[in-house]
Amino acid sequence: MVIEERLKELRDKINEKVPAGITVSQVEFEGPELAIYTDDPKRFADEADLIRILARDLRKRIVIRPTILEEPEKAVNDIKSVVPEGAGITDIFFDADTGEVLIEAEKPGVVIGKNGATLREITKAIGWTPKVVRTPPIESTTVKQVRQFMRSVNDERKDFLRTIGRRIHREITNKDQWVRVTTLGCCREVGRAAFLLSTPESKVLIDCGEKPDNNNNGTPYLYVPEIHPLSQLDAVVLTHAHLDHCALIPLLYKYGYEGPVYSTPPTRDLASMLQLDYLEVIRKEDKKIPYTSADVKSYLKHSIVLNYGSVTDIAPDIKLTFHNAGHILGSAIAHFHLGDGLYNIAFTGDFNYGKSRLFNPAVSTFPRLEALFMESTYGGANDMQPARKDAEEKLYETVNKVLERSGKVIIPAFAVGRSQEVMLALEEGMRLGKIPNVKIYLDGMIKEATAIHTTYPEYLNSDLRNLIFREGLNPFLAECFVQVDSNELREKVVLGDPCVIITTSGMMNGGPVMEYLHNLAGDEKNALVFVGYQADGTLGRRIQKGWREVPLGRRETIVINLEIVTVDGFSGHSDRRQLMNFVGHVQPHPEKIFTIHGDENKTIDLASSIYKRYHIETHSPMNLETYRMI
Amino acid sequence: MVIEERLKELRDKINEKVPAGITVSQVEFEGPELAIYTDDPKRFADEADLIRILARDLRKRIVIRPTILEEPEKAVNDIKSVVPEGAGITDIFFDADTGEVLIEAEKPGVVIGKNGATLREITKAIGWTPKVVRTPPIESTTVKQVRQFMRSVNDERKDFLRTIGRRIHREITNKDQWVRVTTLGCCREVGRAAFLLSTPESKVLIDCGEKPDNNNNGTPYLYVPEIHPLSQLDAVVLTHAHLDHCALIPLLYKYGYEGPVYSTPPTRDLASMLQLDYLEVIRKEDKKIPYTSADVKSYLKHSIVLNYGSVTDIAPDIKLTFHNAGHILGSAIAHFHLGDGLYNIAFTGDFNYGKSRLFNPAVSTFPRLEALFMESTYGGANDMQPARKDAEEKLYETVNKVLERSGKVIIPAFAVGRSQEVMLALEEGMRLGKIPNVKIYLDGMIKEATAIHTTYPEYLNSDLRNLIFREGLNPFLAECFVQVDSNELREKVVLGDPCVIITTSGMMNGGPVMEYLHNLAGDEKNALVFVGYQADGTLGRRIQKGWREVPLGRRETIVINLEIVTVDGFSGHSDRRQLMNFVGHVQPHPEKIFTIHGDENKTIDLASSIYKRYHIETHSPMNLETYRMI
Ligand SMILES: [Zn+2]
Ligand SMILES: [Zn+2]
Ligand SMILES: [Zn+2]
Ligand SMILES: [Zn+2]
Ligand SMILES: [Zn+2]
Repeated sequence: MVIEERLKELRDKINEKVPAGITVSQVEFEGPELAIYTDDPKRFADEADLIRILARDLRKRIVIRPTILEEPEKAVNDIKSVVPEGAGITDIFFDADTGEVLIEAEKPGVVIGKNGATLREITKAIGWTPKVVRTPPIESTTVKQVRQFMRSVNDERKDFLRTIGRRIHREITNKDQWVRVTTLGCCREVGRAAFLLSTPESKVLIDCGEKPDNNNNGTPYLYVPEIHPLSQLDAVVLTHAHLDHCALIPLLYKYGYEGPVYSTPPTRDLASMLQLDYLEVIRKEDKKIPYTSADVKSYLKHSIVLNYGSVTDIAPDIKLTFHNAGHILGSAIAHFHLGDGLYNIAFTGDFNYGKSRLFNPAVSTFPRLEALFMESTYGGANDMQPARKDAEEKLYETVNKVLERSGKVIIPAFAVGRSQEVMLALEEGMRLGKIPNVKIYLDGMIKEATAIHTTYPEYLNSDLRNLIFREGLNPFLAECFVQVDSNELREKVVLGDPCVIITTSGMMNGGPVMEYLHNLAGDEKNALVFVGYQADGTLGRRIQKGWREVPLGRRETIVINLEIVTVDGFSGHSDRRQLMNFVGHVQPHPEKIFTIHGDENKTIDLASSIYKRYHIETHSPMNLETYRMI
Repeated sequence: MVIEERLKELRDKINEKVPAGITVSQVEFEGPELAIYTDDPKRFADEADLIRILARDLRKRIVIRPTILEEPEKAVNDIKSVVPEGAGITDIFFDADTGEVLIEAEKPGVVIGKNGATLREITKAIGWTPKVVRTPPIESTTVKQVRQFMRSVNDERKDFLRTIGRRIHREITNKDQWVRVTTLGCCREVGRAAFLLSTPESKVLIDCGEKPDNNNNGTPYLYVPEIHPLSQLDAVVLTHAHLDHCALIPLLYKYGYEGPVYSTPPTRDLASMLQLDYLEVIRKEDKKIPYTSADVKSYLKHSIVLNYGSVTDIAPDIKLTFHNAGHILGSAIAHFHLGDGLYNIAFTGDFNYGKSRLFNPAVSTFPRLEALFMESTYGGANDMQPARKDAEEKLYETVNKVLERSGKVIIPAFAVGRSQEVMLALEEGMRLGKIPNVKIYLDGMIKEATAIHTTYPEYLNSDLRNLIFREGLNPFLAECFVQVDSNELREKVVLGDPCVIITTSGMMNGGPVMEYLHNLAGDEKNALVFVGYQADGTLGRRIQKGWREVPLGRRETIVINLEIVTVDGFSGHSDRRQLMNFVGHVQPHPEKIFTIHGDENKTIDLASSIYKRYHIETHSPMNLETYRMI
């Protein structure tokens, strides 16, 4: 069936279900959604259940596009009169092309109303379709810039979404039935995640990360024919924003990819922030720059965001659903339903099956599941991590000890994930009197990453959401946290009172942490506290191993007198026990498990342990292999 | 290094080694060979060992191209005066482009002389480089047409060989090291053999056959991206001429392939014969024709023939060597040496590890071997075949019995392989008085296939070669064999004396065998003797299973009164015991074995049996997978 016939058929079905008198002037695929154009958006809004019923019966995600619109100036007043005062609206943007009005508010829930009642009231008043986003409680340059940029490319995006919509809903022509996964990176290694999922009809790339490695360019095997031409890729799916998963996505656009990148909304924002920072770091190191910020913009322009649980057509024979992975903000397990009940496969990305301060444990229940690709970072037989509680106790002890002797605590940490966990632990420690009230300085991109966290509290775990929404206590906004944004302030911190400093980079290869080390390493009252994994070859690892003199640049040497402490247990990954438990609990039990994203011995050990314990077929694939699923 | 520099370097090295006074005017890659152009071909011929030494030191196959040539008319006389009378020269063809003179003779050995002495004498006399081929003792239309066609495209071939030569010797640019095999067909099934061997630098396709299957188009998975664009394939390697290995090679040219197909010389001739017949059969069945005879010509034009044991560069990092596979005339195990000692992998094609009347057992010793792809046609635990001797006894008994009662024996057989085995058994039976002297009629393409066998006696086993060359007794030329080439003769055979009829098709789905069945099935004195495997769904299988009435066309029914006999043991494949023995004997022992070309349960059973007995890692791959070797 050609696409026009298909749309006509859908329009006829919609007309059957819509009450008499409501006109549907056009239906159109826009990205994964079905857009219904109507002259009567207000009456559509009147029928509270209509959209839900259409979505269920047509098995499509539905959006309503009004064709007759109120004047924006009048509409602003109408919105403000419908929405209760307390919503804290900070911006209203009208997009005449889509008939959408984007409302930015401090309390999006108030704009939405119970079960969307207030949203419907807005439509009834003005005809426009409202969309609501949160005003970041901490100002975020990234969020602001992403939102501005997305507005500026609105017209292009509309064309893009229509093109993609029609591609997604194209007719299936090949009669063969098979499902394959090709490993383009991240097998028997950590880094450069890239997996190609293919059927006779479609091709989807899952992640496209980098691997910091001096001997190599650190790119996945993008030169092999399996993935070419890139223009024929249907979709890129991004599990989360860490660079080993997202760094090289803009490179795909440079090489000719023109399709969408699906991710959760926070992953999109974090990824673009980290990609730009990645370019900055490479530029400073005088290495070859793989792509430019223009390619990051291409990525954003082609991004399509999906929330957890939303089942979405991304190719004629592939439905994608994201589920919470518990690893970092917005991190997702990507579940693919292939064909009409033919096969189901999930890629965990990085996941934490334990509960953390920020996130719920990773989801382990799926409607169906035949094959699972799971990370194995801590897959080795002895890769046990202390309980989170014990880790926090050790952190408190260390902080108490150092502050007592009037020292300063330096905590090198990744901007995204680890920093926020440590922030929350320290904030609670102070609130509950377990550690003294001192300033906690945040340097590097930590503040910015934290701001993005506060923009998406829906992605945090239930305890933290309750704290924020019910008790009105957003720990990220606590007074103890001070952003270091100038050299003057950095100097004051160094010279000032005992305090805690959380700063990038996490493995001490560059970043503001070097400045603190330079000034504070000589004094044995201070302490350097590692809360994250220090990779081989990094300065962090060297200091951890006991080096007492480290080079700074080419001329200087820093003498390490300060105390060195390692606090394990703040990891965003499942440890060995949690990985095994996840496999034991995952519903339904998959037929095949592939262990990836881990050192060679760990992926092999985990695969054979899973096979022995659960009698599930396992593989520890190598890069550049293709496995047939069915 | 660019190719021009490389050639200059080679030329310098050659000049160092060549005695003073011999000028080398040019060196050039021509296909896998290095062509040395010289004004002094006669002096080159004087230095008996020079070419051998150059080949060894440069690790290249060397050909000498004279630049100054004697007039062909005079040269003919000179050749005839140099070559001894008994050679039986039947044709001489001068190719001024390459400076080669092609001598067709009944006894090529006499033209060559001991260790090539006579050939050198020819060059010394005329300057031209002689190449010798055998005059088919039985006239072969195929051989004649192939040779004529190759002459007619001489100019194009010269360009082609230079282009390929330069491609083969191009500089290696990629620094990665890996070797992969992608299965495009023939896994857990018999038919449509197609395996892609790839490295970062090169791609080689091994076989490209069809699978007779009504539900499917029977083509390997040529639509997957791994093999595209076809124009970037470095080489196609053909193990042998059966249609499940060669039928779709011409299709590659239709789809844009422009590179060489490597095979032994008899495989090239047999393949083109069977491909043309394949087109004819499809045309008669009113099915969609996949390609035309023009594509078969493209294949021939791009074919490069190699003899067993000749180590040949086919890509910058791949050397190919063919070894006897014992299966049919020219059948080869293809051994690939990858990189500079990086990896070695062999594809058995179809092979027979037992000795047959025509061929020596398959070669099982290789210089090096890490991975082996082996056929599993008879890989099932119970797939034992009777000894060849017992099979022949049973055939003799049957023939005796039928002839005694004045009946006729119909033996349906494949044109290539099985027919010649049965011919030789029957001829010896008559010669030694084990069965009566009657006519053995050959119908269908059997005579033509036999003629091709007699063109290449070097490819037959040592006993048969001795019989032919030492004892001057070519059993294929025995008087008992009579070609049926007209309807009149066919009628005479049917009405005539007791006799044996060997005729195509082997599984009785069409071909002249139907005519014999039509006329002889009603008489219980006659017998139908199956010597080959009858696949499910064929008329042969039905009759074997006991059907006593079979349809002929749409209107007629044949009543089966004649005796039905099955004689197992004439197979060209190794049976289960021989497959296991082959693995036990193969030197050196490979690290990995892949069982292919067999029904699903047989490949799986063979793989697990090999693992249990020999502790070698085995896989029974599925189609569309990619295995990383290193
Ligand atoms: Zn991660
Ligand atoms: Zn990761
Ligand atoms: Zn064969
Ligand atoms: Zn075969
Ligand atoms: Zn395997």
